[in-house]
Amino acid sequence: MSVLVVGSVALDTVKTPFGEAREVLGGSATFFGVSASFFSHVNLVAVVGTDFPEQHIDFLRSRDIDTRGLKRVEGQTFRWEGYYEYDLNEAHTSDTRLNVFQDFEPDIPDEYRRSEFVFLANIDPELQRSVLEQVERPRLVVCDTMNFWIENKREQLKRTMAGVDVMMLNEAEARELAEEPNLVMAARKIMSMGPRRVIIKKGEHGVLMFCDSGYFVLPGFPLESVFDPTGAGDSFGGGFLGSLAGAGSLDEPDIRKSVVYGSVLASFNVESFSCERLKDLTMEDIECRYQDFLRITRF
Amino acid sequence: MSVLVVGSVALDTVKTPFGEAREVLGGSATFFGVSASFFSHVNLVAVVGTDFPEQHIDFLRSRDIDTRGLKRVEGQTFRWEGYYEYDLNEAHTSDTRLNVFQDFEPDIPDEYRRSEFVFLANIDPELQRSVLEQVERPRLVVCDTMNFWIENKREQLKRTMAGVDVMMLNEAEARELAEEPNLVMAARKIMSMGPRRVIIKKGEHGVLMFCDSGYFVLPGFPLESVFDPTGAGDSFGGGFLGSLAGAGSLDEPDIRKSVVYGSVLASFNVESFSCERLKDLTMEDIECRYQDFLRITRF
Repeated sequence: MSVLVVGSVALDTVKTPFGEAREVLGGSATFFGVSASFFSHVNLVAVVGTDFPEQHIDFLRSRDIDTRGLKRVEGQTFRWEGYYEYDLNEAHTSDTRLNVFQDFEPDIPDEYRRSEFVFLANIDPELQRSVLEQVERPRLVVCDTMNFWIENKREQLKRTMAGVDVMMLNEAEARELAEEPNLVMAARKIMSMGPRRVIIKKGEHGVLMFCDSGYFVLPGFPLESVFDPTGAGDSFGGGFLGSLAGAGSLDEPDIRKSVVYGSVLASFNVESFSCERLKDLTMEDIECRYQDFLRITRF
Repeated sequence: MSVLVVGSVALDTVKTPFGEAREVLGGSATFFGVSASFFSHVNLVAVVGTDFPEQHIDFLRSRDIDTRGLKRVEGQTFRWEGYYEYDLNEAHTSDTRLNVFQDFEPDIPDEYRRSEFVFLANIDPELQRSVLEQVERPRLVVCDTMNFWIENKREQLKRTMAGVDVMMLNEAEARELAEEPNLVMAARKIMSMGPRRVIIKKGEHGVLMFCDSGYFVLPGFPLESVFDPTGAGDSFGGGFLGSLAGAGSLDEPDIRKSVVYGSVLASFNVESFSCERLKDLTMEDIECRYQDFLRITRF
């Protein structure tokens, strides 16, 4: 089964207390796609400028990611510049240049329209809805968002959410969207807006997943070295949806397993800048950390 | 088997966004003792003043807590006054009056000296050491502390830690004691100071436990209403050590189970002011939440 991701492909400049990386491969669709590609075929829709290095596209293709939906248009690629202090949970943006991403209008290639699993990465909720209008009855739609859309396009976001199966947010976004400080109550309120499931990402503190029949709580994987948290949320999404698509099942045990695989991918991704750590990662590494997760959480 | 706790019995005045409680029963030895009493006999050593209400002592006794070590001396009982804002993870102290606690010198009654499980609640590390000198080869010693002792009595604290099996701290304390921001590395450094185990309490985000053979991670129990976090850490300690003493075993599976019981007790304790919620709590409630914990963490 295949996974469709619609989001950004970007060039990131990131500074952390441990080092700096300039103009490296980034963007939500990148982190998601590379992570999902360990489990499933990935269809990617995004836009880059004429300056985007061909080698990055070669890398994506090498991961069995279909890039027919990756448009190259006149202009500069989306650039994000940010930094982290010792509290690696909080990203500080120093510069955002949307460039060609400003006029991004997702155009889903015919070959992608039957993708069974869809990830709407963090883009304008109106564009997310236009994606849903172009795909044919996917089995599962997962939607990410951010504070900017919650604050500036709340009604549009709510309209999009009505067509979404799983809403994925971080703690602060969940509280802001629901206007409710308690996460359990916030999740319930978000489910009342449409999605049957809510996944709340808590960074190093793990993940909460809520649905009608109860919830699932997974702690973060304790890491000795967290190098760069950029892309952790999207790597989580990629591991989650990729492994679900790979399993081809939406049973509760498979959904829980996929949350663990999402956390495994995110835990690897933060161990280096960009998606460097994912480049030499093997399925054996992934299975090994999955087993570690089992071992350290069992009682 | 019995558990010895040496710490404070206090009168707390607490304000949270949800209400206020004046001069209610508090103190580390109280929260620990009441929580541990669900699983084991408890020997309590602390001091109160002449103003301390007899009804509180009756309550402790009603919980099978031996209060022969609770001294009543001339003067006022230790009082703590604090408040929480919406971030319930952080306590703000507005007033601390040590009163009779200022001159507290733990005098362990003969009947307590063979307690097999010892909890050194957060008091001066020199006093903690004097407790260890008075007990006869306990099977397990657990030690709590706080930033004040880490900053002002670091060397004394390290001497105490050399005789301790399990060090129990919150995240910030672990980082400060180890002078290391990464929790995995901090735990390793703390273990090199003596304790064979380190338990790091992360409030709503759960618990990390480290030992030579690996670690155990338990997420926090997702609660719909957190009313007052005062005493959560000590309730955790009481549930942990009480259930270990109850089981009479120091096997790894039993230690992990006890971490879960500790979290269960803490999760109940924060549902009301003081230890009100623990007053009508039953073993059935405890087992039920333990099973919930299993259910929401299994994959």
